[in-house]
Amino acid sequence: MNIQEIIQSPRVRWMEQQAGSESIVISSRVRLARNLAAIAFPNRFDGEQARQSMEEICAAGAAMQGQYTVEAVAFDAISPLQRQILVEKQLVSPEHAQNGSPVHGVMLNADASLSIMVNEEDHLRIQALLPGLQLSGCWEQADAADDLLEQRLEYAYDGKWGYLTACPTNMGTGMRASVMMHLPALQMSGQSRGVFQRLSQLGLAVRGIYGEGSEASGNFFQISNQVTMGQSEKDLCEYLTGVVLQVAEQELLQRQQLRQKSARELEDKVGRAFGLLRYARLMTSQEALALLSDLRLGVDMDVIKGLGPADITELMVCIRPAHLQQYSGLEMQPHERDVRRAELIQEKLRGTEHA
Amino acid sequence: MNIQEIIQSPRVRWMEQQAGSESIVISSRVRLARNLAAIAFPNRFDGEQARQSMEEICAAGAAMQGQYTVEAVAFDAISPLQRQILVEKQLVSPEHAQNGSPVHGVMLNADASLSIMVNEEDHLRIQALLPGLQLSGCWEQADAADDLLEQRLEYAYDGKWGYLTACPTNMGTGMRASVMMHLPALQMSGQSRGVFQRLSQLGLAVRGIYGEGSEASGNFFQISNQVTMGQSEKDLCEYLTGVVLQVAEQELLQRQQLRQKSARELEDKVGRAFGLLRYARLMTSQEALALLSDLRLGVDMDVIKGLGPADITELMVCIRPAHLQQYSGLEMQPHERDVRRAELIQEKLRGTEHA
Repeated sequence: MNIQEIIQSPRVRWMEQQAGSESIVISSRVRLARNLAAIAFPNRFDGEQARQSMEEICAAGAAMQGQYTVEAVAFDAISPLQRQILVEKQLVSPEHAQNGSPVHGVMLNADASLSIMVNEEDHLRIQALLPGLQLSGCWEQADAADDLLEQRLEYAYDGKWGYLTACPTNMGTGMRASVMMHLPALQMSGQSRGVFQRLSQLGLAVRGIYGEGSEASGNFFQISNQVTMGQSEKDLCEYLTGVVLQVAEQELLQRQQLRQKSARELEDKVGRAFGLLRYARLMTSQEALALLSDLRLGVDMDVIKGLGPADITELMVCIRPAHLQQYSGLEMQPHERDVRRAELIQEKLRGTEHA
Repeated sequence: MNIQEIIQSPRVRWMEQQAGSESIVISSRVRLARNLAAIAFPNRFDGEQARQSMEEICAAGAAMQGQYTVEAVAFDAISPLQRQILVEKQLVSPEHAQNGSPVHGVMLNADASLSIMVNEEDHLRIQALLPGLQLSGCWEQADAADDLLEQRLEYAYDGKWGYLTACPTNMGTGMRASVMMHLPALQMSGQSRGVFQRLSQLGLAVRGIYGEGSEASGNFFQISNQVTMGQSEKDLCEYLTGVVLQVAEQELLQRQQLRQKSARELEDKVGRAFGLLRYARLMTSQEALALLSDLRLGVDMDVIKGLGPADITELMVCIRPAHLQQYSGLEMQPHERDVRRAELIQEKLRGTEHA
């Protein structure tokens, strides 16, 4: 896919979660923060330096080949709505998408499993995104892309401090690894609070689905490392993977309890979500996300037939404002979006049945 | 139908509301309070007098013919569950059904449009029940039955005070006329409070669906006269009919407003009720009644297809505890009833569609 196709497509690589097992870990991401040695960092650079940084990085990107072939787009070349679609697909940050300028942009590979933001907080933010729990896979991909870029770019690097970044919390490896998890049973049993406290003690951050500052919606959570120094990237990924597997184990245990002790209540919860998603005629993003969380639990636990976890992930992305407007071909006010969102959900759920 | 068939049947006469027009008035009822002159009233009689009253009234009932042919049943001959079913069908009062004795009972005609409680608060409570707004029809039927009974019974009657009753508020005509109305649009627009205040000023009482002391559920209300003296029964019925028509007119006006100004919100409200009724797996009476109110509005306003107002009335009765247990053939705890209620609603709604 080229970038226009990625914008048009309902799915990109990280959303393609396999059906079958319980889909507790939705996706994995590794991002590396890098800066050019010869140019002031984005929080201090001037227009000319920004242009130069953009040019050098895009040239290095254009030279990447194979799995890592990327296409670059400057943000003045696409509309604010299209940039917002990239945000909703989690390929660029909300802050970065604010810039409609020729010196800000992104480079994407064909399935958008590699996304390189240019002139965001750092000159480069190299992100690898994959479905399910694949942090090592993400790291390998980001690392390989980083190596290819480094053949043509000179990074700001210090023998003692490692990679230098605009914000000191990113220094060292420059790596942030994160997973998006769906933890409805831990939430229902009231155990998530204790779990999150332990994660915090382990130096991990728990955030809402849309990253920093966003509230947790629909029992979806992002778990990421805070420490970027003193450990190798591989070790960090393995450490986070181990912790995530433990959290998934606890979620699974609660789901078994739910199935054994409250099967009817579970079916009721899932059935109500399904009934509202199918027959409501007005729906906010917030309500849709909460109901899709219940539906996802129903898919995982075989209460809902004819729908896979990737379908739910697709719906979670497609109901967001920019996607809704893109598919409808027109700008819409919030009330119109609530109408269109309900319609879209009903179109996508046709053929699905509650057991 | 005989009494056993009436108990088994999902519908009796007053529930048979015609499809088509908006079903704002669900049913009409006229009841006459009468007592025997020679026997102490039920609040003061002894066992022997109770037996004698029961015997005389049942003998008079047995002599009634044609449309008014009734069958009598003493309450020791049917189970508490069966008596509760008669309560839920609104054929006997909850208080009366408490008595499992041979000196308490009811006489019903074949379609249960005539129900004569024996040894309730008064020796006789003659009730006529019909679907829709038919107060004059109810009055004629109750009056005719009353005439037939009076050929064989000597009533307690005073030239000045009229029919004498256990409670002075019933003296005079002994008549209470009432209608059950469905007023969702007046409730949604917040206008019902003002309307009910005016009704109270006009000497009318507004009560919940299950009569005195019951809270209004699901926007269903009983409106009845308070005054039983100083006006003929016919005039009272005509007066109440006139007022009810005005209230119905106001409800209709609000429904038109709803259709014109908030069609989408209406469809959403009805759709959500439909979705929950079809897919919930646990449902309390209270929630079911509230959702059936929304569904009834949807039927009236053509948002729901394949269902008539009588189907909703039937559901409103069939989901009550005694009916649920009767149809399931077993006694059930509240949680089991919530399960069975959800199942029953789904069976009845099969084949119905939301437009």
